[in-house]
Amino acid sequence: MEQHGERYERGLKALQHISGDTEPSVLTSLAGIAPDLGRYIAEFGYGDLYTRPGLEPRDRQLVTLGALAALGNAAPQLRFHINGALNAGCTRAEVVEALIQIAAYAGFPAAINALKHAEAVFAEIDAKA
Amino acid sequence: MEQHGERYERGLKALQHISGDTEPSVLTSLAGIAPDLGRYIAEFGYGDLYTRPGLEPRDRQLVTLGALAALGNAAPQLRFHINGALNAGCTRAEVVEALIQIAAYAGFPAAINALKHAEAVFAEIDAKA
Amino acid sequence: MEQHGERYERGLKALQHISGDTEPSVLTSLAGIAPDLGRYIAEFGYGDLYTRPGLEPRDRQLVTLGALAALGNAAPQLRFHINGALNAGCTRAEVVEALIQIAAYAGFPAAINALKHAEAVFAEIDAKA
Amino acid sequence: MEQHGERYERGLKALQHISGDTEPSVLTSLAGIAPDLGRYIAEFGYGDLYTRPGLEPRDRQLVTLGALAALGNAAPQLRFHINGALNAGCTRAEVVEALIQIAAYAGFPAAINALKHAEAVFAEIDAKA
Amino acid sequence: MEQHGERYERGLKALQHISGDTEPSVLTSLAGIAPDLGRYIAEFGYGDLYTRPGLEPRDRQLVTLGALAALGNAAPQLRFHINGALNAGCTRAEVVEALIQIAAYAGFPAAINALKHAEAVFAEIDAKA
Amino acid sequence: MEQHGERYERGLKALQHISGDTEPSVLTSLAGIAPDLGRYIAEFGYGDLYTRPGLEPRDRQLVTLGALAALGNAAPQLRFHINGALNAGCTRAEVVEALIQIAAYAGFPAAINALKHAEAVFAEIDAKA
Repeated sequence: MEQHGERYERGLKALQHISGDTEPSVLTSLAGIAPDLGRYIAEFGYGDLYTRPGLEPRDRQLVTLGALAALGNAAPQLRFHINGALNAGCTRAEVVEALIQIAAYAGFPAAINALKHAEAVFAEIDAKA
Repeated sequence: MEQHGERYERGLKALQHISGDTEPSVLTSLAGIAPDLGRYIAEFGYGDLYTRPGLEPRDRQLVTLGALAALGNAAPQLRFHINGALNAGCTRAEVVEALIQIAAYAGFPAAINALKHAEAVFAEIDAKA
Repeated sequence: MEQHGERYERGLKALQHISGDTEPSVLTSLAGIAPDLGRYIAEFGYGDLYTRPGLEPRDRQLVTLGALAALGNAAPQLRFHINGALNAGCTRAEVVEALIQIAAYAGFPAAINALKHAEAVFAEIDAKA
Repeated sequence: MEQHGERYERGLKALQHISGDTEPSVLTSLAGIAPDLGRYIAEFGYGDLYTRPGLEPRDRQLVTLGALAALGNAAPQLRFHINGALNAGCTRAEVVEALIQIAAYAGFPAAINALKHAEAVFAEIDAKA
Repeated sequence: MEQHGERYERGLKALQHISGDTEPSVLTSLAGIAPDLGRYIAEFGYGDLYTRPGLEPRDRQLVTLGALAALGNAAPQLRFHINGALNAGCTRAEVVEALIQIAAYAGFPAAINALKHAEAVFAEIDAKA
Repeated sequence: MEQHGERYERGLKALQHISGDTEPSVLTSLAGIAPDLGRYIAEFGYGDLYTRPGLEPRDRQLVTLGALAALGNAAPQLRFHINGALNAGCTRAEVVEALIQIAAYAGFPAAINALKHAEAVFAEIDAKA
């Protein structure tokens, strides 16, 4: 097995915390087709960016929810970060508020579709509980 | 002069606080071509949405920065909300962090261009001071 | 049950007309996760915007089809407004023409995908008839 | 000089009518870098698509305004079609209404920026008159 | 049956080569709802554009993969062109590299989702073999 | 001055080659507001991604032109990579062909605006020569 460096380990730890999963799905999902992209996500996306000290994880999740809900073309990642926002300390009500706010900046369809993803993520969590 | 209702007054007050301006530029900018849209922004965008109790103004600005930086096609509004984030309690360093985070979700160009807008907004503030 | 005001009632009536449904799906769909967003859609989206006197409902649907087909990331809303355009007076052939036109401004994929949604909406209508 | 066929001539005529210009700027603008793209725009964009019989020119302009305002990244083309909508029979008030409607589907920034373009196009027309 | 001209025949031949299919799915898919759009895709998209002599088919597929992966809202077309890139001479490894590169310009979600489509396309090809 | 590692040096060298500049503008441009983002672009964007062995630099530039032209909201980066494509071995005619191809996948406005950037980049190069 490939030896991973410090950036990877730091990123993996952050990714595990955000996902609430010891084997984050983004890494297993890419293992077959592009494992290096999975490694970059851990190293750069989380080891470099996400763990920078200047902004709290909860704040980074709010920025990310804004970005993904506005783009409206990345459903799996939006679902991942709706869950991630909860794991970083947002309440469900705050996630809902953040997504309602999107109506002003990207229109009603973006907000509606994001909220339907939130509803599905919350239901999955409840089903597991 | 048109009589405005409670939603407008609540929204205008929020807009004045975010913009640091008694006559927010978005309203004066639309006064000639579509004053009703300005009114809707105050009433719905701020009086209904922005002032909802479930999420702090600073958090709403972070969501908004994420949305506008990721869309990458709304420069005047991104600049407005970079300033707005500062007025809602973010530090300049936090705004910079939020925009660096965009690289992961919308790519380097979106992050670079947003940060150049932040640099320009900070310089304008310094020039006024 | 919550008392709704005049803007809501005016918007709901427009929404019922466009959807051909006394309980428009966008409202029932949001009832669980974000009923306030449903209320805003009725109040602002339809009560304020859609019912403005300066442009016919049919014309507003054409603008909306252009917007949603070009964005290409809001399938449920595009389907809703394909049906809405028919209810506002467009023929099926006009809806098809409007979506073919999108090829020039947003490329062939946007036009193709929008037309496949139109085909599905028309089939649903025929199945109900 | 290159001999143009029937599709080109039909498209050029439509383009001249929409632009109010015997030498439409999109063709002169591309003459140096990619004249063939200019030819395709005349032949396919206007000779094939725009002049199809099933939808009125005014209706096609409304669809186009919706598409370009929602995309928010094509300022020269949006300005061209704001003028084109007027030449196809829309009033200024109808153009403004169409662009206000965009707020519901693509957010306030898209609507604001499109309306500022409309204001500029109207001022250019007045300056020429 | 409609008589097709030289542009159509040239485009159809290119489309057959790219798709590896004598009846390309994009044409059959549009046959019910908008056969003219299918004809335009063959005539303009392939007969005019794709078969221009100045750039190799393989290069055009790389440009197309970049465009569709970055837009992130055209899954059927991205899958078509992942297969098309292989038929134009790219290896699977090159397609994977092209899509990993997207992370820099449109973010990780665009790259991840495009690569999952590539994985599915490769699996379909293997299942047929 | 900060000590940079191997990834940075490898990326900087690639960036210097693509830009034709010993001090690439993207790094100097970010030096004031977010030097770490500049570092990430060198390390991850070029040191990790761009220099991967599985796809030629010229091919990566074609993918990048496709992505940036289709997104249509990243003018400085599109100009950088139009120049980069030339430095990676594309002819001007090939760049023009790549951008004309965009009309099929993202519409005429995206292709037109990208080609006007190409015209400007070519003129800048000629002015320097």
